[in-house]
Amino acid sequence: MVVASGPLVTFDPGGRILVAAAGQTLLDAAFAAGIPLDSVCGGRGICERCRVVVAQGEVEADDARGGRSGGEVLACLARITGDVRVEIPEASRIESEQILTGMERWDQILSTSEEVDIARPRAISTAAERFADGPLAFVLPLSLPPPTLEDSVSDAQRLARELLRQHGLRDVAVPVEVLRAAPSALREAGWEIGVVLVRTSVGHQLIDIHPAAEAARAFGIAVDIGTTTIVAHLVDLGTGRTLGASAAVNRQRTYGDDVISRIIHAGEPGGLERLRSAVVDQINVLIGSLANAHEIARDEIVAVAAAGNTTMVHLFLGLPPAEIRREPYIPVVVAPPTCPASQVGLRIHPRAIVAVMPGVSGWVGGDITADVVACGMDRTPELTMLIDVGTNGETVIGNRDFLVCCACSAGPAFEGGGISSGMRAAGGAIQRVEVSASGGFVYETVGSVPPRGICGSGLVDLLAELLRAGYMDRAGGLHLGSQVVREGPGGLEVLVAPAEATATGRDITLTAADIENLLRAKAAVYAGASLLALRIGMDMSDIDRIYVAGGFGAYLDIGKAILIGLLPEVPLERVTFIGNGSVAGAKMGLLAKATRRRAIEVSRKMTYRELSVDPGFMEEYVSAMFLPHTDCGRFPDACTTLQFS
Amino acid sequence: MVVASGPLVTFDPGGRILVAAAGQTLLDAAFAAGIPLDSVCGGRGICERCRVVVAQGEVEADDARGGRSGGEVLACLARITGDVRVEIPEASRIESEQILTGMERWDQILSTSEEVDIARPRAISTAAERFADGPLAFVLPLSLPPPTLEDSVSDAQRLARELLRQHGLRDVAVPVEVLRAAPSALREAGWEIGVVLVRTSVGHQLIDIHPAAEAARAFGIAVDIGTTTIVAHLVDLGTGRTLGASAAVNRQRTYGDDVISRIIHAGEPGGLERLRSAVVDQINVLIGSLANAHEIARDEIVAVAAAGNTTMVHLFLGLPPAEIRREPYIPVVVAPPTCPASQVGLRIHPRAIVAVMPGVSGWVGGDITADVVACGMDRTPELTMLIDVGTNGETVIGNRDFLVCCACSAGPAFEGGGISSGMRAAGGAIQRVEVSASGGFVYETVGSVPPRGICGSGLVDLLAELLRAGYMDRAGGLHLGSQVVREGPGGLEVLVAPAEATATGRDITLTAADIENLLRAKAAVYAGASLLALRIGMDMSDIDRIYVAGGFGAYLDIGKAILIGLLPEVPLERVTFIGNGSVAGAKMGLLAKATRRRAIEVSRKMTYRELSVDPGFMEEYVSAMFLPHTDCGRFPDACTTLQFS
Repeated sequence: MVVASGPLVTFDPGGRILVAAAGQTLLDAAFAAGIPLDSVCGGRGICERCRVVVAQGEVEADDARGGRSGGEVLACLARITGDVRVEIPEASRIESEQILTGMERWDQILSTSEEVDIARPRAISTAAERFADGPLAFVLPLSLPPPTLEDSVSDAQRLARELLRQHGLRDVAVPVEVLRAAPSALREAGWEIGVVLVRTSVGHQLIDIHPAAEAARAFGIAVDIGTTTIVAHLVDLGTGRTLGASAAVNRQRTYGDDVISRIIHAGEPGGLERLRSAVVDQINVLIGSLANAHEIARDEIVAVAAAGNTTMVHLFLGLPPAEIRREPYIPVVVAPPTCPASQVGLRIHPRAIVAVMPGVSGWVGGDITADVVACGMDRTPELTMLIDVGTNGETVIGNRDFLVCCACSAGPAFEGGGISSGMRAAGGAIQRVEVSASGGFVYETVGSVPPRGICGSGLVDLLAELLRAGYMDRAGGLHLGSQVVREGPGGLEVLVAPAEATATGRDITLTAADIENLLRAKAAVYAGASLLALRIGMDMSDIDRIYVAGGFGAYLDIGKAILIGLLPEVPLERVTFIGNGSVAGAKMGLLAKATRRRAIEVSRKMTYRELSVDPGFMEEYVSAMFLPHTDCGRFPDACTTLQFS
Repeated sequence: MVVASGPLVTFDPGGRILVAAAGQTLLDAAFAAGIPLDSVCGGRGICERCRVVVAQGEVEADDARGGRSGGEVLACLARITGDVRVEIPEASRIESEQILTGMERWDQILSTSEEVDIARPRAISTAAERFADGPLAFVLPLSLPPPTLEDSVSDAQRLARELLRQHGLRDVAVPVEVLRAAPSALREAGWEIGVVLVRTSVGHQLIDIHPAAEAARAFGIAVDIGTTTIVAHLVDLGTGRTLGASAAVNRQRTYGDDVISRIIHAGEPGGLERLRSAVVDQINVLIGSLANAHEIARDEIVAVAAAGNTTMVHLFLGLPPAEIRREPYIPVVVAPPTCPASQVGLRIHPRAIVAVMPGVSGWVGGDITADVVACGMDRTPELTMLIDVGTNGETVIGNRDFLVCCACSAGPAFEGGGISSGMRAAGGAIQRVEVSASGGFVYETVGSVPPRGICGSGLVDLLAELLRAGYMDRAGGLHLGSQVVREGPGGLEVLVAPAEATATGRDITLTAADIENLLRAKAAVYAGASLLALRIGMDMSDIDRIYVAGGFGAYLDIGKAILIGLLPEVPLERVTFIGNGSVAGAKMGLLAKATRRRAIEVSRKMTYRELSVDPGFMEEYVSAMFLPHTDCGRFPDACTTLQFS
């Protein structure tokens, strides 16, 4: 038996103890212990949300704020040197339930999806046909007749024969490692077993043998690897149910906010490996906290379906992304083969597999394919537009006959990135805001707790309300004289919630710089969507349906998103907010083979329009830097509401 | 860069220097350095053939003969503790060319084999169709059009597209590790590359990308994992030519001479791992010395085809063999899947594959399947018998319509094991013996050098000649009075070569105990073959052809083998000696997919008769303990020649 050794870190309240690696940060250790500390800057010491108190022992603190017993440090900058006891103040803690927001939405959609329904078995006993078109991994019960002198085939042949007889499965590969353990596993279980099967690119593989009693447990992870945020869902592959979700800032942000700066960093010595391990470690931490919370052993997790843009997928798999950025913009791969989790570095079952949603090109990745299969626009005759308000700002237009897409760098503003009080849609995030009759703000937070920041949907509301109340002009300029606008250190700013009302004890504000960032982001998104429609000869009025994806939170006020010109103006009932379509599509891919097949068809069918070289792009972008737009002809109702002309 | 550190061992003559691991034996170090020291006892200090002189420095010698500078030690018992300089006397050295004996025979047979001929390409440029039914691994040239804005598919898609266009290959899997290196490999090569492909159980896999100039190199290893001897052949997969062969005693012999004692040892704590690493290390050493001798890098070796009895295959793959021995005698697997060499522990290309010849049951392994496909008895209408005079003594009877086999433990005597002057057919082995007109011996050695011992074919000759000359009776008893029989320390013995004529400076003798061992071995082999024929209702006169396989050496005098009753008496022209059919079959499997397919058919078709529980076996065995047999009716010509009745 190997006994882990290293400094002991004790977290209060709760007293959870972790054996850490010397040099590990307290933030990493907290994640590893399943304690979701707040952090939005990717561990760079910028957001200052991961404050903890060193109660006993010492840490090495990079921020020159000391690290002595009794002192407050930023967990992300504090490195563990020996045994230490740490107190986590209420303000620095995100309750994991609070970041589940949005999970239920997709479980509802999934439960009505034909494909996933096929994949969801009612009972393990009728598993085979149910799994035929089903999940990436599953458990099958197998009752083997004990060998006799008359029936003396090898253990491997017996397994193969009964998989065929009892479940109709042929040519199931059994790796040597499984064979090594097979004789004792079969005999100790009295020949009544549960086998764990995974579906690789080339067929089924038997990755483990369990005694029958435990047979029913196989779990999967769906993960959206965003440039800014990583979201992981834990799924019971036997029932199709989502058990929990967890999210964190992509720690690659330490090396740059957008894909371009990450690609540049990957070209530096050791850069690719730093980026690879940053994202893989982060996913391991998310998986660890999910497993912890749901009392699941890591090796009961046997499959991962991942979606991300092409650069994120390259970094996740350790593939050099340099050529994506260099003409003629060639990725190493857009539809990676299913590969062993151990090769990727995920700490789950040693023979678990990772399937990555197929992408289209260097600039349109599997996250968009996932969005498309999640909203189902590839199966409808209706002309549909999908807008993913992520860091890369992708738009897809099409239906079951064609799909065309574009991307334009929008930045992380609507995920809370680069916004002084921005945060992802976790507990304490202001997700709805209104200007009340008295001229002040009323807001609603995720989890109905004191506010800690503003998430994407809150930012959309805030811009719309500032505009509607006349506190802000069409160019984003604030007006002094209203009760919520004041002089700040960097010019005029909006006081959204005063320090005494917040969980952090600090004012929650929106600065002029924040507004500038949001304007640039919304302009890029709108410009991409409208120019793509223009270039394929469509008018917005031709669009039957718009799906909006993005990390705004559980909720998005479509009317307000149109009011600020983030979305094109169409009748409200034509627009549906689908939240994180990428993780939803990945989850459907995890659960249904038909979805994975559809994703491949979508990725083959979709054509990419490079708008960054389109001479019309800058014009569209500049026109969209106004609220809702310079051309009120495109936003007639919004302009009427706002009394613009 | 990692610099290896450890004690330096210098071998004279030649001055080859090796960085050894502390605690490694001098024998292992010599093998690792590609210096084939003589050794037949599996490193147990018994055969005393690996004597070396410690010229400088010290070793730790287990044999209490000291290990001081200037002293003579057994290399197998001498552990390296620090820098040391070692002299290898001529007598302890086997020249590697001398153990190639028998290699040419099979290359001749291979060159006339239709299957292997198909697999052998004339020129790399027409490789694809030639490899379609060909080797386990091969190199294909690929000329990729460099990407442009108009042709901007990913590197992976470009590879897949051109493999299909230029070679008709579809669905070639490219592992993530290869993709990681692909962008730079493709661009540095200017898009003119050679790809290394391996054929797994489920399809083709691209395991490496080379610049075109080096494209032509891919090598394979065919290995026969015998209970007593391991033989490896190095094959150029591009031309099908065998470049070299290397053999060594299976070091598992330290843990027992036969499969039963190995199975028992595998059940002890750590036993399986000891046996596994013994055989894998030994194969690594053989591969290393072959690579060394032919100036091939280890990672140019990309495929291994292995054949062995079922227990040897279990130990090679690390599979627990215990159930093979326990009723109802269930192996873990008889036809293992193709698996990565890295999983097995072979130090060749990290993504090389290992294919194991499929066996029939716990007691009839892939070595026999290999024998069958090598001699082609599965394709002929003639009734054929195959006798493998190995440690397990297998017999197969059949033709293209049926195949039935049996096994009976014969022991290693005819491979030189358990015989005081026995050795394998390496340089200096007496391979032919005659009693001259003057009553003394004339002999011929492998390599025509002074004798060092007697190999299998020499032992057969010796028994026959002793019998014919009247120096030995039908029961194996020696008679004093002839010039070659003398009193020895353990009773009467035959002096085959006196000390002054030998390379070792010691007498080469055959003792009464040796004769007893040989009698038991030949009786077991004959009893198995004759009883199997009897049980399926065949008479020896029905047999159209007999193939004899075994590690006798390059040569076997069939007439003499019949004279001593090792082989049944049939007209001489019906008997063919095929040598090591196991390594030959493995090599055909390495080179031709059709052979691997045939091997699977053979393993499915062959039925096993358990003779050890047959009441007739002991009777047959005891009758065969005489020379040629108690029943002269079965050996009429032999008995006439010998003037027995």
